[in-house]
Amino acid sequence: MIKKFIAKNNIESRLNDAVNNILDSVNSESMLYHINKYPIPSKKEIIKILNGLIDIIFPGCFTEKELNGVNIKYFLIDKANDVFEKLSIEIAKSFRHNHDIKSEQCELCDDCVENGIETAMFLLDSIPELRRKIVLDVKAAFKGDPAAKSYNEIIFSYPGLTAITIHRIAHILYNRDIPLIPRIMSEYSHSLTGIDIHPGAKIGENFFIDHGTGVVIGETTEIGDDVKIYQGVTLGGKSFPKDEKGDVIKGRKRHPTIEDNVTIYSGATILGGDTVIGKNSIIGGNVWIVNSIAPNSLVTLSENQTKMNIKTCVVS
Amino acid sequence: MIKKFIAKNNIESRLNDAVNNILDSVNSESMLYHINKYPIPSKKEIIKILNGLIDIIFPGCFTEKELNGVNIKYFLIDKANDVFEKLSIEIAKSFRHNHDIKSEQCELCDDCVENGIETAMFLLDSIPELRRKIVLDVKAAFKGDPAAKSYNEIIFSYPGLTAITIHRIAHILYNRDIPLIPRIMSEYSHSLTGIDIHPGAKIGENFFIDHGTGVVIGETTEIGDDVKIYQGVTLGGKSFPKDEKGDVIKGRKRHPTIEDNVTIYSGATILGGDTVIGKNSIIGGNVWIVNSIAPNSLVTLSENQTKMNIKTCVVS
Amino acid sequence: MIKKFIAKNNIESRLNDAVNNILDSVNSESMLYHINKYPIPSKKEIIKILNGLIDIIFPGCFTEKELNGVNIKYFLIDKANDVFEKLSIEIAKSFRHNHDIKSEQCELCDDCVENGIETAMFLLDSIPELRRKIVLDVKAAFKGDPAAKSYNEIIFSYPGLTAITIHRIAHILYNRDIPLIPRIMSEYSHSLTGIDIHPGAKIGENFFIDHGTGVVIGETTEIGDDVKIYQGVTLGGKSFPKDEKGDVIKGRKRHPTIEDNVTIYSGATILGGDTVIGKNSIIGGNVWIVNSIAPNSLVTLSENQTKMNIKTCVVS
Repeated sequence: MIKKFIAKNNIESRLNDAVNNILDSVNSESMLYHINKYPIPSKKEIIKILNGLIDIIFPGCFTEKELNGVNIKYFLIDKANDVFEKLSIEIAKSFRHNHDIKSEQCELCDDCVENGIETAMFLLDSIPELRRKIVLDVKAAFKGDPAAKSYNEIIFSYPGLTAITIHRIAHILYNRDIPLIPRIMSEYSHSLTGIDIHPGAKIGENFFIDHGTGVVIGETTEIGDDVKIYQGVTLGGKSFPKDEKGDVIKGRKRHPTIEDNVTIYSGATILGGDTVIGKNSIIGGNVWIVNSIAPNSLVTLSENQTKMNIKTCVVS
Repeated sequence: MIKKFIAKNNIESRLNDAVNNILDSVNSESMLYHINKYPIPSKKEIIKILNGLIDIIFPGCFTEKELNGVNIKYFLIDKANDVFEKLSIEIAKSFRHNHDIKSEQCELCDDCVENGIETAMFLLDSIPELRRKIVLDVKAAFKGDPAAKSYNEIIFSYPGLTAITIHRIAHILYNRDIPLIPRIMSEYSHSLTGIDIHPGAKIGENFFIDHGTGVVIGETTEIGDDVKIYQGVTLGGKSFPKDEKGDVIKGRKRHPTIEDNVTIYSGATILGGDTVIGKNSIIGGNVWIVNSIAPNSLVTLSENQTKMNIKTCVVS
Repeated sequence: MIKKFIAKNNIESRLNDAVNNILDSVNSESMLYHINKYPIPSKKEIIKILNGLIDIIFPGCFTEKELNGVNIKYFLIDKANDVFEKLSIEIAKSFRHNHDIKSEQCELCDDCVENGIETAMFLLDSIPELRRKIVLDVKAAFKGDPAAKSYNEIIFSYPGLTAITIHRIAHILYNRDIPLIPRIMSEYSHSLTGIDIHPGAKIGENFFIDHGTGVVIGETTEIGDDVKIYQGVTLGGKSFPKDEKGDVIKGRKRHPTIEDNVTIYSGATILGGDTVIGKNSIIGGNVWIVNSIAPNSLVTLSENQTKMNIKTCVVS
């Protein structure tokens, strides 16, 4: 279809010029360009690893394969081997990336690789404990949502369960100081669910996020046990002190602490590293909180905030 | 790359231990584990079925195949056969899952299978009526959005149309009391669009959601004809009465009723099973409504709510 | 499994009836049906094109292939050729679609095809400039987010970077009056990121959206340099004047102007085509703005809006 215009519009030579200009741009700006002999972690591989881990945590739930008492062990061995190998390599590449940042020579040195292997093994060893927590998260969802018909409905469809499952995996890697991979995992989850939990956030047991779109939970947030959160809740930073150069200071506690047995309704905003929501509190929808709340509090919008103008109108 | 560490770090035996521990975890906790002879519904198959139905509803719009007056019939027969077979099986599995919950023996009994077949046929028989409604939804979007350039722009790109199309399909299955599948469909749509419509919600004709991210429409919501909703609107529950055991009571009308010809602007929150928004009303952005609104009302934020502190600042 | 019911339940003939009814529906309503000899743009192809462009802009970042100083040129030539050919065809189809709307005869006329080729070439020629801007966007994200650990973390995981990258591509095509394709691109980005930027929006340099879920930026928005936006911000329309027929008037400036060096915190709503947020201003979370704000302003919720009811409660 386009062939007759190739010669007429001088396409070949113009495409060649375009590529040469792109090449100049690539060579003069290294930020978006990777020509390392050993590449950086692969987003695609990390998503495969995550799905492998989910198959191991929920055996038979998402796989095409029908599992029974005989083949379950072979299924797990196969998946665990595959995840182990892929994850070892991706973690090794992540560590190597740190050498890059420090401009050190590293073509996947033994340290990087051994670190990759040991961390991958650590994650596989953590799976029974992960499964124990995720079972409690499913139960918390069933208890907390009047619309939930069965545990399987939660396992098969609730975005809040996807988000907390991936978070609990990513958080293990974050705690081992793995660069890049935990955040790639959490942003994959964000893309699937609309729920943005930084892998650094500490989250207790029996956690449930309902609906979830727009939830933001910042890196230094601490959440106790039996906490329930609805869509659009922000647990965020209040202000970002800058250093003498005017750059934002990194690494401080910037996000709130939510104690045990707190429920936070939709659209509530809770900000600040010193802000503590005391245990057993209920935070109503759309409230704006920048200071601590005592335990056992019920916080709701003030009368002023729920007052509206209501006029009669004639709609054409 | 990792081979030289396999022996040194004793990987084989450690992987074996890890898998044995996972196996113990799996055997001691059945919630996340399925070793049924006949498996539960498959999320992947249900997404394939949905895409097949969308190909039938919008023939030629999303398929690679070029359709014409001759091959259209074969295309439809082929797709309809495929959807019928897949959907029959998935619905049969869903019904079987109900036997599971009641701890009854069922290896896909005849009742389950026949129910699957009849429901799949019912859905295919509903397609002309579905198409009639979706055409009206496209027209409502074109009428309601000043940025819409053509009907095809809406069909090819508007998340609100994806959401209402999948909802109208899922709602048919919800009304036939199919477990699991309607919610898997609606959460797939939620993941694609950021719009969370429970398959139980009753939605009239000429429905349009613009932008849509963060919209939540609860299970027992009732929406009339000619309703327009913007991003971030919640039609939710106000409170969840608990039974004597402290568990949330399921199955009541918990979400609002929106009458004909109502527009609800972004971020408005409307809560409660008794809350009725009367016909022809306009609900302004960000308002918080927990009681009924009379027909023909214009509801906006009060003066207090739009007052802001404005200071002059010197930004460094 | 379902075979034994095929005869008993008379499935073949009922499926045939269902398809005939669908066919009647298809033939009587052309809106959702395309049997053109030359098809409309393909959503799948456009997503492939976008991913090809992203591979060219970020060489080696997302591709499986390991790039080095030798193969980079061949990689770029290969990708550029592929994108050029696919994009030429999709743009030609888009232009042809305009003839459709005007009911003109057009089976991909020479004008459509030549326009496709020239626009595809224009986009490839724009890549060095696109890369220059995206590098600045990455730096703005690093500077603006205390949680960002490295440039690569931003490139590999930040949804805000995905959104602005796809927007900058789609905006080039929007400016060339290409139908359908820019909006298909922007809604693909919306689906991935929860960030809804209309391809018409004009956005300056050093732009950063943090978290991003629920952000809406309307078609006629104008944004200066060094602007930072958080999740849930709406830059939207205030009212939609209608013509004498009662239809919304299309094509006016309906969305706000944000001047240089403005920061807009989460959940703020800024509406109206005449609304200008003056340079160096800081807009606090959740404020509601429908009029212009002077430069150098700090706008925050009023005391009334942050007042809450706090009661002590005893949670059972």
